[in-house]
Amino acid sequence: MNATLQTRLANLRARMAATATDLVVIGPSSHMLYLADLSPHGDERPVLLMISQSFAGFLMPALNVDSARQHTDLPFFPWADADGPADALEQLIAATGIDRTAPSIVLDETMRADFTLLVLDTLPGASRRFTNDTVGYLRSRKDNAEYDALKKSAVLNDAAMAAGFAALRPGITEREVATAIRDFYKANGATTEFCSVCFGPNGAFPHHHTGETRLAEGDAVLIDTGARIHGYPSDMTRVGFYGTAPEGFGQIHSILDRAVEAAIAAAKPGTRASEVDKAARDVITAAGYGPNFLHRTGHGLGIDIHETPYITATSDTVLEEGMVFSIEPGIYLQGRFGLRLEEIVIIRNGVAEILSDMPRTAVAVG
Amino acid sequence: MNATLQTRLANLRARMAATATDLVVIGPSSHMLYLADLSPHGDERPVLLMISQSFAGFLMPALNVDSARQHTDLPFFPWADADGPADALEQLIAATGIDRTAPSIVLDETMRADFTLLVLDTLPGASRRFTNDTVGYLRSRKDNAEYDALKKSAVLNDAAMAAGFAALRPGITEREVATAIRDFYKANGATTEFCSVCFGPNGAFPHHHTGETRLAEGDAVLIDTGARIHGYPSDMTRVGFYGTAPEGFGQIHSILDRAVEAAIAAAKPGTRASEVDKAARDVITAAGYGPNFLHRTGHGLGIDIHETPYITATSDTVLEEGMVFSIEPGIYLQGRFGLRLEEIVIIRNGVAEILSDMPRTAVAVG
Repeated sequence: MNATLQTRLANLRARMAATATDLVVIGPSSHMLYLADLSPHGDERPVLLMISQSFAGFLMPALNVDSARQHTDLPFFPWADADGPADALEQLIAATGIDRTAPSIVLDETMRADFTLLVLDTLPGASRRFTNDTVGYLRSRKDNAEYDALKKSAVLNDAAMAAGFAALRPGITEREVATAIRDFYKANGATTEFCSVCFGPNGAFPHHHTGETRLAEGDAVLIDTGARIHGYPSDMTRVGFYGTAPEGFGQIHSILDRAVEAAIAAAKPGTRASEVDKAARDVITAAGYGPNFLHRTGHGLGIDIHETPYITATSDTVLEEGMVFSIEPGIYLQGRFGLRLEEIVIIRNGVAEILSDMPRTAVAVG
Repeated sequence: MNATLQTRLANLRARMAATATDLVVIGPSSHMLYLADLSPHGDERPVLLMISQSFAGFLMPALNVDSARQHTDLPFFPWADADGPADALEQLIAATGIDRTAPSIVLDETMRADFTLLVLDTLPGASRRFTNDTVGYLRSRKDNAEYDALKKSAVLNDAAMAAGFAALRPGITEREVATAIRDFYKANGATTEFCSVCFGPNGAFPHHHTGETRLAEGDAVLIDTGARIHGYPSDMTRVGFYGTAPEGFGQIHSILDRAVEAAIAAAKPGTRASEVDKAARDVITAAGYGPNFLHRTGHGLGIDIHETPYITATSDTVLEEGMVFSIEPGIYLQGRFGLRLEEIVIIRNGVAEILSDMPRTAVAVG
C-alpha cells in the first residue's frame, strides 16, 4: 500500500472515530478505487472492502484473487462459486473485530442491492448510513495532485468545446457535433464521459438526448461535455447561436452569467452549499425566471462526475478548502430554447477558483 | 407501449401472481430496458419502475421527464431537486394499490444501495427477494427475435475470434491482439463487451487482465471475447498455441472438450442447472483435475452477459425451452497454462443447440 493510500486510510479512520462509525463497507466503485486503487471485475459475485479501526480486508471471489493481488496487499477472504460468499463474509467480519450486537456501519451508496442486503442480513443489528460524512467527505477535499489533474482535464475540455463550436455549420446534426468532440478527446488521449449537444428548442430539456436535429439559422446551441484523462474528469457547459440569436437569448445569457458570478462570490470556506445554491437562484428569481431553473445549482466532481458536495437548496454541507464542484444555473424556455452556463470551481486560498480558462461569452457562429 | 412490452408486462403479472408477489421494483438496469425499453440517465437521482397487478409507473427526476417521455407512455411521478423523492415515491406507491402492511416485494438486485434502502425504508413491513423467479425467469426464456439476435451476435464473434488468432505472431502483446479483435468488432458495427487474451502462464488466472506479455514459442493462447450488436451480446472462449504446444496441452484440451460435450448432452428441458454443472465437473474430476476447475460451469446470456440461469453446483433452476447460457469448463495449471472452452447454447426443440459455428479444436499457429 503506497503512501497516498496509507494517508487516505488513516484519514478515513479519523473520520470514522469522529462520526462513531464501526465499519465502512465498500463495493466495486470509485470509493474502492480511491481507498485501495482497485477496480475489480464487476459482476454479480460479491466483492466487498471492509474497514474497521483495526482491520481492512476484502471479500473476494476466488477466481479474482490472483488478478486482484497484483493491485493491493490488503488481505483477501476468498469464496468459491460452489460455496457462495456467506462463510468468507463471516470470517471477514470476525477479522474486523467489531462488536456485532449493534454496530454503526457506513454503506457504499452505489453498491448493488444484493451486496447491500447480504451485508445487512449478516449484521441485522446494524444502524446504517451512506458515505457522505466519511469516504465522500474525504473525497470532496482534493489534494494537490488531484487539483493538478482536474485543472489539466478542464483545460483540455476547453479545447474540445472550441472544437465543437468550430464544427457548427447549417444542416449539421447534434450527433455529428458530438462526434467531433468525442474524436477530439480520443485524439488527445482522453475518454468521453458524456457529450450533450442541443439545438434550438431541444436545449429546453436539461437532459436532452443528442440526436438527429439539424442546425438552422437562428438556433440557440448548448454544449455540455466532459472527458476523463489521467483518471480525472471535466464537465463544462457553454452556449452560443447560429446566425442571429433567438429573441431573448442575450438577456437570458446575461442573467445566467450574473448567477454564476453570484454563486462564485458566495462560495468560500465556511459557507453552506445551500447558500451557494441560493446565491445563483436569487439572481434568476429576481429576474423573473425562478420557475424555469429546474434543477440544483451543482454537484461535486472528482473521480466521479457526480459526487459530494451537492449544491442544492437543502444541503447543509459546509464548504472547505479543496472542495470541487460545478456551478451550473440554467433557464429553460419550453418551445424556444434553454441555456445553461457551467463552471467547475475549487475552493482554494479562500475563494472559488474556476478551473476552465474559457470565457462564458456566448459563441456567435455563422 | 408496443406489443412486445405489453406481452412482457402481462407475463410478469402472471409470474407475480404465481409467486405471490405484490410489487416489483426496478432500477435503471437491463431489467428496466427489458420491461419498458427505457435506459434512463443513470446517476444518484432515484429512478424506479414499480409494477403491481393493477398499475405500472415511474418515479422520475423532474428534469428527466421530457426526455424519458419520448421512450415510454407509462405514468411518471416526478420529483424536483429542491424537494427530494419522498413525496413522489409515496404517491407512486399509493397508485400501485398494494396493501402496505406486509407486501411481498421483488427488488432489482443490481439497483444502487441508496435506491434500495429508500424503498425498504418507505415499506418497512415488506418481505423482499430478488428478480430470479420473476423478471429474471422471464428474461431467461428467449423468444424467437432474441434467438435470432443472439445467433447473429455469436456468428460475428466467430469471425472476431478468427481475426484474433490470425493476428498472432512472435513478440505481439496480449493487448495488441485484443486491439485487433476490438477493431474487428468496431468495423462490423459491434461494441466490445470484453476481450481477454492470455499468453502462457497468464491463462491460469481465470480473470487475468490482458496486458503487455509478449507471445513466445511454445505459449498456450486463450481468448475469451464478446461484443454486442443489435442489443445482444456474444461470449466465447477458444484456445490454441504458438509453435509447439506446451506439455500436457493436448490432454487438457481433450478433457475440456469432453466436459463441454457431457454438459451439452445433459442440458435438456426438465434438467436442473446443477446437473449440467455436474456433468462437466464429473469429466474433469474423473481425469484428476477437479481442484483445477475453479469456477461454475456457466451463466445465462441475454441483454446482460451474466444473467439467469447460472449453471452452478447448487442451482436448482430447471432448464426450459428458450434458456440461453454458457458452458465453459476450465482447467488452470499455475505456472504452466490454463485452458477453457466456452460455448453459448440455447435449449431449443428439446436439446442444447450451440450458437457458434466455430469448432472447439485448438488453433495451432506458427
